Amino acid sequence: MSGPGPGPVRLEVIALDGIPEVHPGDDLASLVGDALERTAGALPLRPDDVIVVTQKVVSKAEGAFVDLATIEPRPEAVAYAARWDRDARQVEVVLRQAVRVVRMDHGVVIVETRHGFILANGGVDASNVGSASGGVVLLLPDDPDASARAIRDAVGRRFGSVPGVVVSDSLGRPWRFGIMDLAIGVAGFRPLEDLRGTVDADGRSMSATIRAVADEIASAAELVLGKTARRPVALVRGASPPAGVGSGISDVLMPPELDLFR
Amino acid sequence: MSGPGPGPVRLEVIALDGIPEVHPGDDLASLVGDALERTAGALPLRPDDVIVVTQKVVSKAEGAFVDLATIEPRPEAVAYAARWDRDARQVEVVLRQAVRVVRMDHGVVIVETRHGFILANGGVDASNVGSASGGVVLLLPDDPDASARAIRDAVGRRFGSVPGVVVSDSLGRPWRFGIMDLAIGVAGFRPLEDLRGTVDADGRSMSATIRAVADEIASAAELVLGKTARRPVALVRGASPPAGVGSGISDVLMPPELDLFR
Repeated sequence: MSGPGPGPVRLEVIALDGIPEVHPGDDLASLVGDALERTAGALPLRPDDVIVVTQKVVSKAEGAFVDLATIEPRPEAVAYAARWDRDARQVEVVLRQAVRVVRMDHGVVIVETRHGFILANGGVDASNVGSASGGVVLLLPDDPDASARAIRDAVGRRFGSVPGVVVSDSLGRPWRFGIMDLAIGVAGFRPLEDLRGTVDADGRSMSATIRAVADEIASAAELVLGKTARRPVALVRGASPPAGVGSGISDVLMPPELDLFR
Repeated sequence: MSGPGPGPVRLEVIALDGIPEVHPGDDLASLVGDALERTAGALPLRPDDVIVVTQKVVSKAEGAFVDLATIEPRPEAVAYAARWDRDARQVEVVLRQAVRVVRMDHGVVIVETRHGFILANGGVDASNVGSASGGVVLLLPDDPDASARAIRDAVGRRFGSVPGVVVSDSLGRPWRFGIMDLAIGVAGFRPLEDLRGTVDADGRSMSATIRAVADEIASAAELVLGKTARRPVALVRGASPPAGVGSGISDVLMPPELDLFR
């Protein structure tokens, strides 16, 4: 019962070097491939490598910008913005992302997006979007799983080894200060590892253990990507996430009937 | 604007080898030190290394067990357990951890503990607690920051280099399936990195960016620790968390007036 396990288990997270400023229409998969070639030790890819790409560059490449000058805020957005010292056009854009408003207080608007994510400000991003004027915001990718798949397929074709891909975003959470990076898109592996039915080290069944592997991979990547550096892509090596081509981020989303915090 | 940043940024996570089964009264800091010596590449420690120790072994060393045979469940616990096919004595133990019941539905009891954590089942743990009989559960450490500090101090004395320490626990979350490891105790660094007031790559202020560094470090560690292996301690190298001796996990906890999900 007390013996050590097999040899050391290691995980390595490498920030890829030299991703340039990304613009609408750029071939992001090619930029990621170039950065893999440029980064010492990244190649050859291993079968269980995971490439983590931040939402911001995915959205930029896909041109998911909104020019606030084109936005006519509804009266509710104007009133809320005035009360909490926000930009009414930004509030309007957030409300347009919502299939449901979860909470609207303290200047925050927490919405459920059409993807099924519950996000402060609907994932709408006004920082680091490539405009010093503040007149532009960036939306989430249309289909983050598809964005991840496109990168996975192109990188796989180029290097002959097919990595997992995560599209990550920085999310707040109830009860705790601070944002963490979590997965909003996934390709090539299952975002949850289900250990129910397996037996723990004491021979008891692990009834409640479903690990949010994709989210933990996104968080590990954030530690090298940070927020200010122009480093939007990381390689996570050694996480060995569960195989599962065809899975998607919807595996992670809790259906309304199990959601105790609607 | 588009040049690459400084050289590659790397993070390494190393599962320590050879932590034995931990029992009440064991000197956990010595066991961690022995494991650091046993694990290839762990020593010498670097000033910004962080040692992540899972709650389970901290609680075991501190003897935070409850023998369910000694527990008399209140009527509310009996009724709830019967409805959701749970052990009434376990429900009773969970309720005794609560300063406030946040939600009680679907067989789950989400409580605020006296530490200020909001946790499913109050952090009470019935798996992997070293008993195949199921008659024993494990509580959270009394003061996880103090547990982390004790390990930090002892490891620092032994090796002459003082690492950060995180005590981690596996937590569920609203809206998403799956558990992630987060920090419940911290020593030697600030659990939040506050980037407000810094300027992003476009010259705009990053108004909403407070990074939950300790939580991300705990999540990264979980990727090598997993749930079934007897690997309760990891070394995270390269995260460079913000200095801050004297900080504690309470920095992370949101006060009631900002909590939109009470």
